[in-house]
Amino acid sequence: MSKTPLTELGEFGLIDRLTKNIKHYHKETLKGVGDDTAVIGTDGEQNTLLTKDLLMEGVHFNLMYTPFKHLGYKSIAVNLSDIYAMNGKPTHVIIGIAVSSKFTVEALEELYEGMLLACEKYQVDMVGGDTTSSKSGLCISVTAMGKVQKDRIAYRSGAQDGDLICVSGDLGAAYAGLLILEREKEVFKANPDMQPDISNYNYVLERQLKPEPRKDIVEMLEGLNIIPTSLIDVSDGLASEILHIARSSAKGAVIYEDKIPVDMQTAGVAHEFKIDPTTFALNGGEDYELLFTIRQSDYEKIKDVASVSIIGHITENPAQADMVSSSGSIVELKAQGWDALK
Amino acid sequence: MSKTPLTELGEFGLIDRLTKNIKHYHKETLKGVGDDTAVIGTDGEQNTLLTKDLLMEGVHFNLMYTPFKHLGYKSIAVNLSDIYAMNGKPTHVIIGIAVSSKFTVEALEELYEGMLLACEKYQVDMVGGDTTSSKSGLCISVTAMGKVQKDRIAYRSGAQDGDLICVSGDLGAAYAGLLILEREKEVFKANPDMQPDISNYNYVLERQLKPEPRKDIVEMLEGLNIIPTSLIDVSDGLASEILHIARSSAKGAVIYEDKIPVDMQTAGVAHEFKIDPTTFALNGGEDYELLFTIRQSDYEKIKDVASVSIIGHITENPAQADMVSSSGSIVELKAQGWDALK
Repeated sequence: MSKTPLTELGEFGLIDRLTKNIKHYHKETLKGVGDDTAVIGTDGEQNTLLTKDLLMEGVHFNLMYTPFKHLGYKSIAVNLSDIYAMNGKPTHVIIGIAVSSKFTVEALEELYEGMLLACEKYQVDMVGGDTTSSKSGLCISVTAMGKVQKDRIAYRSGAQDGDLICVSGDLGAAYAGLLILEREKEVFKANPDMQPDISNYNYVLERQLKPEPRKDIVEMLEGLNIIPTSLIDVSDGLASEILHIARSSAKGAVIYEDKIPVDMQTAGVAHEFKIDPTTFALNGGEDYELLFTIRQSDYEKIKDVASVSIIGHITENPAQADMVSSSGSIVELKAQGWDALK
Repeated sequence: MSKTPLTELGEFGLIDRLTKNIKHYHKETLKGVGDDTAVIGTDGEQNTLLTKDLLMEGVHFNLMYTPFKHLGYKSIAVNLSDIYAMNGKPTHVIIGIAVSSKFTVEALEELYEGMLLACEKYQVDMVGGDTTSSKSGLCISVTAMGKVQKDRIAYRSGAQDGDLICVSGDLGAAYAGLLILEREKEVFKANPDMQPDISNYNYVLERQLKPEPRKDIVEMLEGLNIIPTSLIDVSDGLASEILHIARSSAKGAVIYEDKIPVDMQTAGVAHEFKIDPTTFALNGGEDYELLFTIRQSDYEKIKDVASVSIIGHITENPAQADMVSSSGSIVELKAQGWDALK
């Protein structure tokens, strides 16, 4: 039998290979693998959405600088983000936790406190799960369920030629926060008596440690009577998500570097690390903003919404995925974001 | 801050402590923590069921003697069992897998093959999930969704004084299989050239490696027009599950040792290991049979069903949980089954 290393395929290649033999037996199953959530039809006016994320210690979080309460909050937030990324509303979460004996009851209580705080803020019911032991480290599994009006659902695949590409909030801050945390960790390891001064980095640290999924954007779109033609959340970096929308929709995309929203603090960290802030936005990941496309006819409705930036448009050519740089040159977008298997 | 070791509370004590502050915001949430699945109301005739299990390498399975295909099958089967344990029917599963780089693509393909085989057999749609990396070992998270007729749902808590206690199939075989596998592993470690002879143990090995959830029992009950007054699946051993039903229902229970169904091969293994086979049944766990109570008036309907044994009855006294031994003495039932945190 051949032995192919996982790293040879990468996350998306592996998922494609593992899921290619899936068959469905229920006509209610409208979408399985391939979008932010699965979509299951019901008799009522709303479809059911289902999504799951695993957070593994040492891969997705480092307990040296991640407070348990924040970790709990984030583990819920990132799952709710997937429900919002279908233009839906989360209703329930179910939790699985595996812990080694090095953890205390009090640590897990803090973790739950954070999870329940996110549940309260987003009005989601925690309805149980599984608590078990692991040989090493902490493993958090969250499944979120939600619903979406059948006539308001937004897949990745609906973008049309000429649609405007929009993104909420700002990008790259979560990655900036991660760089700061990693730097301070090294400083601390070298000299444990040294107290890190991180007061100048509050915004980017919060974006890394306690992201907020964009419930408000889904509500804003509903209020403005806009149905996005496509929608995805920015978990792996803008470039990767633009490519997901373009490929799923069999269209191309052009975005403009000077339209990409980057916070001043993010730009400051980029400057400190001598990295282009656009690189943070394109490849950083974990922003949990919403990226979506709208018809040009909806432009007037959205143009004055402060929390949304229009960063480009969809094109007819599926081979195209370009960024027009601030200097005017054309840069091809590549998915260099977070690949969980590399 | 106090530091309470996890082992001080045990699995059920920990879950009680972690979940005591849960609040629900949706009136549709009929049951959160505390039964085999969560129960969520819908506008239609059926409720939605949601359940999750984590399977951790080194805790729930040992890859030295667990083929990936069987592991995949089992990881689906144990989750479906929870849906059947509400008298429901599973419809969808969503998967999360975390793997370290020691695994190959082919190994994961076998794992998925087993999962999809179980999905086909039980007509369940796999609708995606998350594939990511772990620092060490394999972690499998499965969430199952199902539905149940509102007038047929069976909780743990409905048992009434005088109800008959029934169990499907036979008990203790999965634990017998585990003992054989552990013994052969030691033999193999001592002498890798020695081929284990396990042909006499096929039944108990299959019960351990490839359990089948009791869809047929749920269908049989429907066909006979019996609604169980309470229902649970036997994952932690008969004693633990009897106690769950009795405590949830605020009733007592008496079972009879000579009525507990034990397969001949299980009894043979018990004899080899010089352990009482009743101990396997009471405390072994992982049988994934269904334990349920029915009204005495349903006795005539079920008495000739070969796959069901009537093993005792519910009593009015909540302090009572007894087994009448084959010799006639009274033994108090205690939950000594699988505790995932000890």
